[in-house]
Amino acid sequence: MDAALPTTGMNELKGSPDRASLTEHEFFMKRALELARNCSVLVSPNPKVGCVIVRNGHILGEGYTRPAGKNHAEIEALNEAVSRGEDCRGATVYVTLEPCAHFGRTPPCADALVRAGVSRVIAAMEDPNPLVAGKGLEKLKAAGIHVICGILADEAREMNRGFLSRVERGRPWVRMKVAASLDGKTALSNGESQWITSEKAREDGHRWRMRADAIMTGIGTVIQDNPRLNVRLPDAVRQPVRIVVDSQLKTPLDARVLEEGKTWIFSANASPYKIGAMQEKGVRVFSTINNTGRVDLAEMMETLAKQEINEIHVEAGATLNGALMQESLVDEMLIYLAPCFLGSGKNMLSLNHIDRLADKIALDFHEIVPIGDDIRIVARLTD
Amino acid sequence: MDAALPTTGMNELKGSPDRASLTEHEFFMKRALELARNCSVLVSPNPKVGCVIVRNGHILGEGYTRPAGKNHAEIEALNEAVSRGEDCRGATVYVTLEPCAHFGRTPPCADALVRAGVSRVIAAMEDPNPLVAGKGLEKLKAAGIHVICGILADEAREMNRGFLSRVERGRPWVRMKVAASLDGKTALSNGESQWITSEKAREDGHRWRMRADAIMTGIGTVIQDNPRLNVRLPDAVRQPVRIVVDSQLKTPLDARVLEEGKTWIFSANASPYKIGAMQEKGVRVFSTINNTGRVDLAEMMETLAKQEINEIHVEAGATLNGALMQESLVDEMLIYLAPCFLGSGKNMLSLNHIDRLADKIALDFHEIVPIGDDIRIVARLTD
Repeated sequence: MDAALPTTGMNELKGSPDRASLTEHEFFMKRALELARNCSVLVSPNPKVGCVIVRNGHILGEGYTRPAGKNHAEIEALNEAVSRGEDCRGATVYVTLEPCAHFGRTPPCADALVRAGVSRVIAAMEDPNPLVAGKGLEKLKAAGIHVICGILADEAREMNRGFLSRVERGRPWVRMKVAASLDGKTALSNGESQWITSEKAREDGHRWRMRADAIMTGIGTVIQDNPRLNVRLPDAVRQPVRIVVDSQLKTPLDARVLEEGKTWIFSANASPYKIGAMQEKGVRVFSTINNTGRVDLAEMMETLAKQEINEIHVEAGATLNGALMQESLVDEMLIYLAPCFLGSGKNMLSLNHIDRLADKIALDFHEIVPIGDDIRIVARLTD
Repeated sequence: MDAALPTTGMNELKGSPDRASLTEHEFFMKRALELARNCSVLVSPNPKVGCVIVRNGHILGEGYTRPAGKNHAEIEALNEAVSRGEDCRGATVYVTLEPCAHFGRTPPCADALVRAGVSRVIAAMEDPNPLVAGKGLEKLKAAGIHVICGILADEAREMNRGFLSRVERGRPWVRMKVAASLDGKTALSNGESQWITSEKAREDGHRWRMRADAIMTGIGTVIQDNPRLNVRLPDAVRQPVRIVVDSQLKTPLDARVLEEGKTWIFSANASPYKIGAMQEKGVRVFSTINNTGRVDLAEMMETLAKQEINEIHVEAGATLNGALMQESLVDEMLIYLAPCFLGSGKNMLSLNHIDRLADKIALDFHEIVPIGDDIRIVARLTD
């Protein structure tokens, strides 16, 4: 790849903040956001949160949320301050999400901050979780703590797209991954697609799979490619749930997607016999049918949100890709473009025929970076 | 477009050189290359050349080649030095291409440098033009001037892709422009393509048209879109030749591409009557036929090189695009991708069916930059 290719992108923004160009609040909130990035995927379905406790411009303690059921960021930061012999009374707390006010898997962080005697809490954003939703900040104010909310809110939202989507919209954040030639072909006409993109791009794809709570595909891909849909990286700390959209329950009982781990199949009108056979294999079968006799995709997404799935990574063929797109269930495209032309072959997605350009499906480019010999494009569907 | 999008690319490299990281030769050659970039397109078919004359680290004079028939860069630099009252005896001359040794439209630059009494000439590369090809450097050496050749040769070659292609390979540098949706569609099935990309991308496309000596299309596009194929920019100092590949001479006599300016049509087996009618419209008709009865594209390119066309900008449909690609006559792709999906529609290029990914057409990414809401990709065919 040419040296002239840009190697920057969104990640560039994640570098150490330039203190001079930021307000003090922004400076420490950036640090809290950096900490939040350290959160393991095991915090899911909880949000990733970072926290910094500061007095007179000095950091007393900092922390980030630990895997679900363990300490939240605020407690980690308070503990760190204590372990260093620091006294947090009168300190300012920067936190990337409103502290919780309820007993969930852990006790309320707001109470812990009150007990610690901090005098200010600066939050990037409110927690939309109805169990919190302002109550955490209220509790702090009631205790006489000065509260500011909304510093670097956009960056904080970005950190927890999946969590916010599930809580605010009742459906997961859906990212659709496509690997294609420069002329937009994802496979030859005979189905051959291994491999259009380079090894580096495929490894990068596994990193994105790892971020997701579930990897979704359609029955066509299961039959054509027999994928494993797992994360093949040495540092994979969990395997996402595998989801197959399979109206007729045609997934072969010896398909690789049924091996090990968790697999959920969404079917529409499968026979109880087939459902039973799947259940015997340890597969969870959900049934939801739309008026064309296929899986009701919108209802499927609602179900998945209820199952605490924050973020879905779709790797499917043109049929499921197109159906999800047509029902406005896709939030983000992750496209790897390889520097080659195939001419004919499979398209990225099948859409309803349109006669006017105004009826196109519109996106915004969000990030473009080279990955090995390929490029990776992240684009988001416009609201 | 997101602030996180990279805005760098090849152009970034064109910034002022960082003296500390370059040798002295590279530093001044970078300056000479910068000057060469000021050359007007009117220097074509000659190469763009820049020249800096230096003594003890101080620039005595600098210049770049003027439109064909006017001063070359070396003469401009010498003249500037003289007009400043500088004496070039003993100076070092940096020039991005070997000085000419022959009487062309202007007298030999090598002679002028000898007369000026310079003591060193540093050239980025030899001039492959058989009338020069080392003779310029020989002439300098014979006069006792110290000669170095090869400083920043790659950058210097990049500057004159078209000229070098014509002189070294006997065919023009062929750039193929495509504007497409993210899923690789250049038009709807009904042909609608105005506009997939944004106004900024289309204006940028006109800048690339302006760089070219000729704009080429196929008869399909002439009939479908009736394009003007001109440069619609306020600073257009010339209109490239318009070339239509039209085996049967089906271009309508009232087609816009025949209005004003120069139009050349390549036909295969057109009737003398049709040829006569075209010639009456001021159109130049070339005939060249291959063994399938269509225009012999390779021979067409040789003919165009003989007509001193350095650089061709192709804006055609999938048929001509595919035929040029299949005959390995394309050097570079200029692809504008719009952030949208169309689903079905026209492909970028029609290629022979392939059954193995190994038979793909391979490119390398060269530059990727955002242009308005779209992205522009420059990719080159691998050798």
